[in-house]
This record gives sequence, C-alpha cells and structure tokens, in this order.
Amino acid sequence: MAGSTLGTIYRITTWGESHGAGLGVVVDGCPAGLPLTENDIQSYLDRRKPGQSRITTPRKEDDAVEILSGIFEGKTTGTPISLLIRNTSQKSRDYSEIAGCYRPGHADYTFDQKYGFRDYRGGGRSSGRETIGRVAAGAIAAKVLREFGIGLFSYTKSIGPISISPERFEQAAVSETPTCMPDRDASALAEKYLSDCMSSYDSAGGVIECVINGVPAGLGDPVFEKLDANLAKAVMSIGAVKAVEIGDGIEVSTRNGSSNNDPFRLENGKVVKVSNHAGGILGGISDGSQIVLRAHVKPTPSIFSPQNTVNRQDEEIQISIKGRHDPVIVPRAVVVVEAMAAITILDALLVNAGARMDHLKAIYKS
Amino acid sequence: MAGSTLGTIYRITTWGESHGAGLGVVVDGCPAGLPLTENDIQSYLDRRKPGQSRITTPRKEDDAVEILSGIFEGKTTGTPISLLIRNTSQKSRDYSEIAGCYRPGHADYTFDQKYGFRDYRGGGRSSGRETIGRVAAGAIAAKVLREFGIGLFSYTKSIGPISISPERFEQAAVSETPTCMPDRDASALAEKYLSDCMSSYDSAGGVIECVINGVPAGLGDPVFEKLDANLAKAVMSIGAVKAVEIGDGIEVSTRNGSSNNDPFRLENGKVVKVSNHAGGILGGISDGSQIVLRAHVKPTPSIFSPQNTVNRQDEEIQISIKGRHDPVIVPRAVVVVEAMAAITILDALLVNAGARMDHLKAIYKS
Amino acid sequence: MAGSTLGTIYRITTWGESHGAGLGVVVDGCPAGLPLTENDIQSYLDRRKPGQSRITTPRKEDDAVEILSGIFEGKTTGTPISLLIRNTSQKSRDYSEIAGCYRPGHADYTFDQKYGFRDYRGGGRSSGRETIGRVAAGAIAAKVLREFGIGLFSYTKSIGPISISPERFEQAAVSETPTCMPDRDASALAEKYLSDCMSSYDSAGGVIECVINGVPAGLGDPVFEKLDANLAKAVMSIGAVKAVEIGDGIEVSTRNGSSNNDPFRLENGKVVKVSNHAGGILGGISDGSQIVLRAHVKPTPSIFSPQNTVNRQDEEIQISIKGRHDPVIVPRAVVVVEAMAAITILDALLVNAGARMDHLKAIYKS
Amino acid sequence: MAGSTLGTIYRITTWGESHGAGLGVVVDGCPAGLPLTENDIQSYLDRRKPGQSRITTPRKEDDAVEILSGIFEGKTTGTPISLLIRNTSQKSRDYSEIAGCYRPGHADYTFDQKYGFRDYRGGGRSSGRETIGRVAAGAIAAKVLREFGIGLFSYTKSIGPISISPERFEQAAVSETPTCMPDRDASALAEKYLSDCMSSYDSAGGVIECVINGVPAGLGDPVFEKLDANLAKAVMSIGAVKAVEIGDGIEVSTRNGSSNNDPFRLENGKVVKVSNHAGGILGGISDGSQIVLRAHVKPTPSIFSPQNTVNRQDEEIQISIKGRHDPVIVPRAVVVVEAMAAITILDALLVNAGARMDHLKAIYKS
Repeated sequence: MAGSTLGTIYRITTWGESHGAGLGVVVDGCPAGLPLTENDIQSYLDRRKPGQSRITTPRKEDDAVEILSGIFEGKTTGTPISLLIRNTSQKSRDYSEIAGCYRPGHADYTFDQKYGFRDYRGGGRSSGRETIGRVAAGAIAAKVLREFGIGLFSYTKSIGPISISPERFEQAAVSETPTCMPDRDASALAEKYLSDCMSSYDSAGGVIECVINGVPAGLGDPVFEKLDANLAKAVMSIGAVKAVEIGDGIEVSTRNGSSNNDPFRLENGKVVKVSNHAGGILGGISDGSQIVLRAHVKPTPSIFSPQNTVNRQDEEIQISIKGRHDPVIVPRAVVVVEAMAAITILDALLVNAGARMDHLKAIYKS
Repeated sequence: MAGSTLGTIYRITTWGESHGAGLGVVVDGCPAGLPLTENDIQSYLDRRKPGQSRITTPRKEDDAVEILSGIFEGKTTGTPISLLIRNTSQKSRDYSEIAGCYRPGHADYTFDQKYGFRDYRGGGRSSGRETIGRVAAGAIAAKVLREFGIGLFSYTKSIGPISISPERFEQAAVSETPTCMPDRDASALAEKYLSDCMSSYDSAGGVIECVINGVPAGLGDPVFEKLDANLAKAVMSIGAVKAVEIGDGIEVSTRNGSSNNDPFRLENGKVVKVSNHAGGILGGISDGSQIVLRAHVKPTPSIFSPQNTVNRQDEEIQISIKGRHDPVIVPRAVVVVEAMAAITILDALLVNAGARMDHLKAIYKS
Repeated sequence: MAGSTLGTIYRITTWGESHGAGLGVVVDGCPAGLPLTENDIQSYLDRRKPGQSRITTPRKEDDAVEILSGIFEGKTTGTPISLLIRNTSQKSRDYSEIAGCYRPGHADYTFDQKYGFRDYRGGGRSSGRETIGRVAAGAIAAKVLREFGIGLFSYTKSIGPISISPERFEQAAVSETPTCMPDRDASALAEKYLSDCMSSYDSAGGVIECVINGVPAGLGDPVFEKLDANLAKAVMSIGAVKAVEIGDGIEVSTRNGSSNNDPFRLENGKVVKVSNHAGGILGGISDGSQIVLRAHVKPTPSIFSPQNTVNRQDEEIQISIKGRHDPVIVPRAVVVVEAMAAITILDALLVNAGARMDHLKAIYKS
Repeated sequence: MAGSTLGTIYRITTWGESHGAGLGVVVDGCPAGLPLTENDIQSYLDRRKPGQSRITTPRKEDDAVEILSGIFEGKTTGTPISLLIRNTSQKSRDYSEIAGCYRPGHADYTFDQKYGFRDYRGGGRSSGRETIGRVAAGAIAAKVLREFGIGLFSYTKSIGPISISPERFEQAAVSETPTCMPDRDASALAEKYLSDCMSSYDSAGGVIECVINGVPAGLGDPVFEKLDANLAKAVMSIGAVKAVEIGDGIEVSTRNGSSNNDPFRLENGKVVKVSNHAGGILGGISDGSQIVLRAHVKPTPSIFSPQNTVNRQDEEIQISIKGRHDPVIVPRAVVVVEAMAAITILDALLVNAGARMDHLKAIYKS
C-alpha cells in the first residue's frame, strides 16, 4: 500500500531506489508564502551526504537537489513541491553477487517474501539512500518552523560504548566532528573505536538525540494522534532505529511519581515546569517546554566479515559483503532524525490551526 | 482534529470521557464472517477492569460492553461494529477541587492550552478510562488474528526495580498474579514494593513486554508504514508510555554488527533466523519469527503527597490529589499494549492483501 | 474497509442498521468552544423523521438523540462527540420473506456478493436509516458554520414531472409543505402525483437543490480535494442519488464560453461576479459567491407491485415488497443533502486554516 | 493541504505547473509483479497530447514520460513509481499580460484569495496540463485492471448541440476522429460547429461517457466509500467538469420505481440484470454489470473575444485572452475521465481484498 506518504496537512511522498535513476519527494500542503530556494534544502542534504570522512561510505554522490514545482518568484505557492535528486554513482556490479541471497540484518528476505522479488541493487528501496527524500522534506519543514520561532537541534549522543559528557557539551562541535558529537573528546574516542571496528571488519551502533525549542503549547491531538505517538512513528520508520524515547524515556519505568512528575511554577507570569522529565509533552500535547527525543540505532548490518545465511535457492551459504558501507549509521542519520521531527511538528502545528473556535475566528473574520 | 481514529483498513474510532455517559469504539473494516459475541470482548475488558486487587483503584466499574451494530446471526457483517460501555461509578465531586489547577504529570495544562478549557472530571478524555475503546477493538482484532494462527501474549516485565527472571518464567502466572508478572516470586516482591509506595503516598512505573507468534512474513510496508513504526505509534499513543523498543531495542546501540545481525538458516526446508535480535521485523516488514516489543510506562502521576503547581488564575499553589488511583499503571495496561499490537498487526495484514498480483489473482479469478 | 468515516479534520464515523439496537455517529475534530445541546441536533433529525405525512413511511420513530461524550458545561471540548439514536420500532417479521431474495434496485445482491451474507432486516446498513448519523453530524457542522456567517438552505426542486416555479419561490414553504417544496402550488400538484403513484403501487424520484451563502473565498484545495469534488462525493454517497450538479451543471455542456463565463466586477469595492453559472466554485476553490448544487434522486426501489427477481438459491421468482416505505425519498432526503454539504464545507474551512503563512501567524504569534 | 494525493491503497500524488520544469506523479501501492514499460504509459499520454488537430491548442509538447523508480527487470516492485514529464514548450511571455487580472471562468481569483498570490504562468497548477499526472497514473491502473479482465472505454458523447447517435456507434472511430466521437457523421458536424465557434472567438462544452466492463460484483464500500461516490469525486475533480452522472443519472428523477428498477434474472446459471438503469452499481457496490458514467464539461473559459473583469489593483478592466487554447476541452479530456475511473476502480479492488474472512484465507493459508 501507500507506505511512502506521511502526514495529514503537511504531507510528504518519497520515492526512489539506491541504484535507480534518482530519488525524490513531493511535499504537499506546505503553507503558501514561504521564501524557499534550493540552497535551503541542499544544506540539509549535505549533512547526510556520503564520502565526507573516513567513517562514511566512500560512495561519492553530490546529491544535488532540483526543485521541479511549487515555487514561484522565490516563494512557496501552496501547491506540491517536487524535488529530484539524481543518482550519479551507482555501481550495480558491486551488488550482483548478493542478488540471490539474504544478507543478515537487511530487508532482502522480507522484501522477497512480501513482493515475490526485489530490486537487489544496493538494497533498492530499503537502502539508506531512501532517507534523501525525508531530509529534503524536513529541510522545508524546519524552515517553516523557524518562522514561528521553533528550532531543532540533533546530535550523536553515543557511538558504541562512547557517550558524550554533559560537562563538555559544545554545540558547534556537532557540525565540525565527523561523528556529529557535541563533545570533541568523545568524538575522538568514537573515531578510534570505529577504526577498530573497521579493522575487525565490523560495525557499530549508537544513539541520536533531538531537542526542539520554541514549540508552543497545544500541538498534538488526544488519543491516537498524540505528538509523541507521531514522533515515535516518524523516528521508528527510519531504517535502523530499534527504540524511541521521549523525555526521560526508559528511565521512567524505575522512578516514583514523586520524582518523575514535573511541578508547575510561574516564571515572569508564565506557567513553566520546574523540571522536564516529560520531554515537553503531556497527554500527547506539547506543554511549551523543550521537546526531547532519542533514537537508538543498530550497527550497520553490512559487514565485511563472513556471515552464514541462505540463498534464494534455499541453500545454506556463507557471504562476505563487499561494496561501500558506513561502519556506523549514526552520524549521517542525525539529520534524518531531525528531519522526521520537523515534519511531525509542522504537521501538528497545521492540524492544530483548526482546533478552537477563537483561533478560527482570527482567520475567518465574519 | 480527528485524533481518535486509527488504521487504514481495520479502522477504529474511540470516544468517551472518564465521567461522561460512557465510553466506546466504532470498529470499521472488520472482515465479514467472523463469529463474534459480547463475551469475546468482555474477557479482554475484564483484564483492565478496576477494583480487582489492592494495587488497582477501588473505583468499581463493571465495564459491561453492549454491541450496538455490525453483528448478524452471530457473525460480523463487514459493517461498523459499535460498542458501548456505560460509566456507572462516576463520583464527580472527588474532582471538583482540581478543576481549577494543573496536576503535575497530567494533561490538565496542555488541554487547557489547546482547547481553551477542559472537562476536568477525572481527567476527561485523557483519563486512563479512554483505553476501554482500545481494548474492546483489540479483542476483536485478536480474534481475527487467531483465525490466521497469530497469537499475542503480554505481561509485566518489571515494576520499579523488580524484574521478572527468565528462569522462573511461567506463562500462567500472568493471569493469576495481580501484577500480571509471569514470575510469582517477582510478583510477590513487586506487591511488597507497591505497598511501600502506597505507604509513602507515592507510585511506581514499569515495563510491559508483548510477544506475537505466527505472524507471516511480509506484513508492513516500506518507508513510513513500516510495521515497527506503526507498532511504535500505537503503543506510544497509550497515555503513560514514554519509550518503545522493538526486539533488542536500546541494547542494539552498544552492539557490533557481527553480534547484532541474525544469520539465516534452514529448518525443515524453511528459512528461519538463528537468533532474533531484530524482534521479528526487518526493513519494517515481518520476517516470520516472533515479534517482540516493550513499552516503558511512567509512574502514576496522581499521588497523594503534596505537590507544587499553578492554578488557572496563575497562582502558585500546593495540591494533594484525592480520588481513586492505581499506585502503578502497568498491570492494567498490559492488555492495552496487547490490544494496540493486535490492532496494528491486523491492519497490516489487511493492507498487505493487495500487495501482489499473484495474491490478488487468488481472490479475483477472472 | 472503513467506508463509514468521512473527512480530514472534521471527521465523522457513522454506524448502525435499520433493525439493530440503534444508529449513531462519532464526530471527531469539531472545534472546541461551540455551544451545543441535544436540541441543536434534534431539530435536524426531526426534519428527516418518518411518519410525518401520508407521503412518508408510517414507521413511527422518535429518533431521539443522546449525546454520550464531547460536551462539557454546554460546549464542545474538542474531543469526539458520540451520538446515539436507539431504534424503537423495528418490525423484523415484515422483512423475513425477503431474507432470501434480491430486491430490484436494492443492495441485497451486492452486499451478498461482497460479504458472503447480509443483515437483511430492513436493508441493514444500506437502509435509508443509515442517514441518521449523517444528519446528526451535519447539524453540528451547520451550527459551526453559522458562527462564521455561513448558511445552508435546501429544498425539493422537483418530484417526478412537477418542478417548482422560480416566480412562486417562497422559502417558508419548505418547512410547511410535506414535499419540502418552496412553492405551495407545485407541492399540491406533487402530492396529487404521489397519490397516483401510490394507487398504482409505484414510486417517484425527484431533484434536491442546496444553496450555501456566506462561504468565504478560498475553501477547497487544488487537484483532488477540490471543493466541488468533495461535495460530489458527499452527495453521491447518499443512497439513492444518481447524479450531482454544481452550479449550472449539465447545462454547461451545451453552452459557449462567452455565455458560460461569469465576468468579474466591483461592488462596493469588493470583487464579485456578474453571474454565477459556476455555482460559487472556480478551479475547485470557493469564490465567495453562493454555492449551488443539485442531487438527482431515484424513485424508491421498494414498490408494492410484483417484480421479477432471483433468490439466493438461484431460482427466478416474483416478489411483491411489503413493509413500510416512502413513495418518494426526496422530501426526507432534503436535510440529508444539506447535512452532507455542511460537513464538506466545514472540513474544507478547517483544512484551509493552515494554507497560508500569514493566516498561521494570526494564530501562532511568535 | 495535501490536495494532490488520491486513493487508499493505490495512492497517487501528482505535481507540476503549466510553465514550471515539468509535471509528474508518484504512484504508490501498485501491486508488485506487473510488467510495465514507458510505452504502456506513453500511449495514454499521447491520447491527451496537444497539437494533434486544428481543434486542439497549437502548443507542441512531446509529453515524453520518464520512469524514475519502482520498476526492476521490467516489472513493478511494489514501491513508488515516480514518473516525470518535462515541459519543453513554455512561452511565459504569452501570459505576462494576464498576470495581474482575473480571467473569467478561471481559478486566478480563487488562487489569489486562497494563497495570497499565484503562479500565473499558463494557469500554474490549475492548468489543464495538471491532468498529465492523472493520465500517467491511470495508464498503470488500467494495465493492472486488464489483468483481471476489466476494460475501460471512453468517448465523446456530445459537443455543444451535436450528440452521437446510438445507431451509428462505431468504437474504432473514437481513436480516429479528432473529436473522439464514436460516430463519424456526428464528429464531422461537431468539427464544423467548433470551426464556427473559433470564427466567433468562442468555445464549446460537451459530454464524455465512460463504460467499464468486467468489474466483479462487490467493489466499493458502504456509506461514504461507495464506488459511485468515489467515481463522482474522481471525475468532478477534473478541472472543467460541472456534473457527474452514474447510469441513467439525471433521468431517474422523472422515472417511476417500476420502470427504473432493474429486475434480476438468471443467464447460464449466473445472476444478471434485465436492464442497467443503475449503471452497474447498487448501494454503492458494483453489481457485476457494465459501469456507466458521464461527465459534463464546460466550454473552455479562455476565449479570444473581449470580456469584462477586474485586476489585482481592484480596477474594472476588459481583457482579450491570447495564447494557445483548445476551442473545446472534451476530446483531450476523454482519456482523463477514463484514467480517473481506472484509478478509482483499482483502488476499490485492492481495498476489497481484505473484506471477507474467506478471501483472506485464500491468501494467508495458516
């Protein structure tokens, strides 16, 4: 079914395979009147671009975006924004040997079971390149949000056993370290750790954190369209993510109510919370404080050491994966998590516009 | 917006407040021809019914379900199944004192911010009683799934610091312990722990695990409608859940690819996995092995000890919550997690029916 | 699948069969803060109530509505409004004889083909009583619209060969004639015509017109979510409707562009159209002038004269339908058309709230 | 909002403006395993291509389609099929003079009201070129349907006052006459009529009929997702359509039940209808007989004769539209109606796959 569309009002539809003609996204429902250029989108795509350091795949792709529709005289018109990113560095021969077998940790087997066959070139639709459309749509969403004073910030919290230290937190380091860690010491350790992984033909996982500031109270809807529920879906839909936490997340299960509740108080006449264990969401609705979420990312399943598996002829075989692969997915996925959060928050903001009679009367003066 | 509807083909719409006339759900898209009686639903509702032990709220509700439509001669007709559960034990006076203030950890403040006011009686729509509609719809979904050999099993994995032991795992204990733990020793310890919490006017959190057997490979769709993404949304949409894990979940972030990948092998000519770190889902699509997920539940926010907060007149005050509250949400939420999982799996199964030309030709013989 | 849910933000879910326990609707996404009582809804339901004249079925139903949720202190809270109307006058024995055969013009055969069997009592889900939920949801939508200066007015334009005369148009007559015609002379002729139909065991069709005043320019979305497209769907989804026209409708196919275009001009500094052949919609978006639509309704398929048909045992038989049936559907369907139009316009109004950056900034002041 | 997406399982998202870089569509949810090439799509696009006769716009566009994703080894993979058609013959200067004024019968005014400004080049998103994405998606849907023995056939029924004669009906003529009329005599008369229109700087409307053979009984869902309701929406969403009829359509309003009902009978042991006034749909569900629908198309609003209107500076002015315009929309819209019908029928077929327990068991053998 239509698995490639997300959102109620800000609705995105992505498409494309790793080794097809290209990838892209159609962004429908973007509010009219937003200044937007290809640069706004390219700067996000560049954050996930491969080939930027020795801990990312050596595949070289410019991933240059072309805006095909929806912009006129530099502004969004309210109609669909179609974005195209051509693939330029496909090497289909790299993958010919895995065409007939099921790589452990990959979607080869499940795609075959679901559809009867699959586009095996570079993982086809289940490739990490699928996230290009998400990032492009997220760049637009983030630009809309900035107009309302909402800012997103994402970073690597840990790689394998190496975690950042709150004491050394330095925001600028995120864009300057190859790990996207806001802690240069931890980043150096993580690079060393990844080198060791690569030496032993292995890979590593990690954790990404995203914080969102400036979200007004009131976004998200009761019951199934809770803001945290939609954030969880959006982030869990990223290929390698296996767990999603909101606020203090897994920690809350061992807490008592007295220590987990966030008391309210007044600050300059405004209701605020003394703490933020809840991560900015109460009852599925934003409470005006910082929204905090974390994604737990599995180690890259493509490893060079030999693995046992089965082929399409139902024979047990051993494979050693070749090709170009990141030893860790996390640094390039940081911007993907941020993009999915931006898309989700914006959709909630647009949906919420119709929630109250008094708000509607601000638009429709009779 | 329409936050109370979930699903593409198996689509449920819940309604109702803690202290209104009642609660219910409309289940649309249930396949025709399923034998269904009120007993099938009541047995699930009874698992979340209050007043069953000293660790649940003393509020007494029969939560008896009435089927209003969609059944004829004992079978589903394919048209909407409307279910009604009347509230019978509302005590609105219990809540009058909290009408004007914002309870920490509750949705009082966010509902007021979103809608301008709220039904403050017992939490209104954000009450835990909202889950009645989910459980009723989940009971029907689970019955459909059983017809395809799919079975769900959920239990309490931990309460506060007390976790079950894999060595003492006893399935029958889930329905026989007040904690829903499959380990009688752990359950006794947890009861003691909860007693202590209650003595100190406090509450506890915990972890719920759900395993699903018999799911055929191929359910779930690429990109945004991944099976794990929809499970994450469904489970995170339950009031007190703050984290969702699939398979080994948060553990994967510290693993290496070589230890996290699940090798494939043959078993009686069938492709199976040697291990199941992935929790039965690869690339967002079920792989035929057991699906495993966990929900991390925060401690009950309603505690009897005094808390600082703010009232609607923007004054800092102190409140002590009265009323009838569970010291832990987990045991009654076990069936809610199971219900949400059943609803999600069934919807994926129905959506997947149209995924392949050969499957369609099994239905539409031309 | 979920055929009983309609709408993006104002989302309604109806349920119920002719001879089940009752019928109802869940209205989700109604803006918070609207004063609403059961009277607001009952007055609409009374317009479609049976047994009000000799040209409607003698089945007596009070069709009294109960609000089960979503209202607090007399106002909508933003959460789902669940409405219940109990059936009180089912006479299942009337229908036992048609349980095994396919009535011409009815959905008996198609329900059997789709679902394998059907609730044959009074047409089950395909009964005209299904529209009760639509009318109840439409009453709420119409009340919201009135707050924005938008008013709907519907009436019978023709019954069989009898059409109203523009010269004798009298709005008050709609609620005072049994035909809902705004022309007392035409109504008298139509009553005579219907008497003749009944004498010959036959039935009649007719045309319903709905006009909507005060709709601001800008509602409806390009391409598939055009306002006229959604009005067409909403109105064509009413059981007996076989054609829908917007503005001059079928007339336009024989016109020239020079006579069909509506020139713009200024009126008190405001852009208006000189004529309104378009019926208030251009490019799928409301243009600020009156919206006009018409529904063509087939004659009641239940007639007392003998008809040839087939039974479930694949035998050719002859049946004479008994029971209680209207000789014409039109007068009771007038309010149904109005309800569907109101639901559609309101949903477009809510969706449109997020269409422009400047409108959003009126709500979300940063 | 997301006005450019349609469908539940077979879900299409179109994008593009008349004078932007190009137009396209993303088709998601197409069943895997369908052989598909660009030729399958191009042959449909060629039927709506401009510049093919003197009664279509002289704008020359090849409208050559490029498949960007979703096909592997000549077959659909189940993932999104992205199609791109580059614009090659934009002449933006033709439209500069109408940038600041509201053309009668066009969406200029309503787009400005909705979004605050518009892409005025050639109508932007409201151009007839928007239908390219529909036709491309319809070509794929029609190919899937052919695999199930379902065939669509569409043609011009009338242009202005000239209607086809049932006696002279010749299917082959549709693709051989510039009018797409299945009656060469009527076509010649219509060409003469259109010549006269052009001489007087005017335009004409007409009627398109679409018949669909081989649809199995059971497609469409009760209440809001009736097959005729979705056909009405799909067809009314085409720019110039102002009325939609199913079966005998507007005729039914003047009929009696005895003449409008279609009696059932047996034919070779199969249940069929003696007549087909209903147009193949009963209670919103296909009945196994031919589906018949008609679209009433308004005359091209772009005419060369002078018209009164208003400009963006709120001044009353007179304009004479220049540029390249068809004197009648109908012949090129024939394939658009067919495409929208194909898309709607296919989606209903896919959704219906999950409607019955016995059908599901044919797919999921436990």
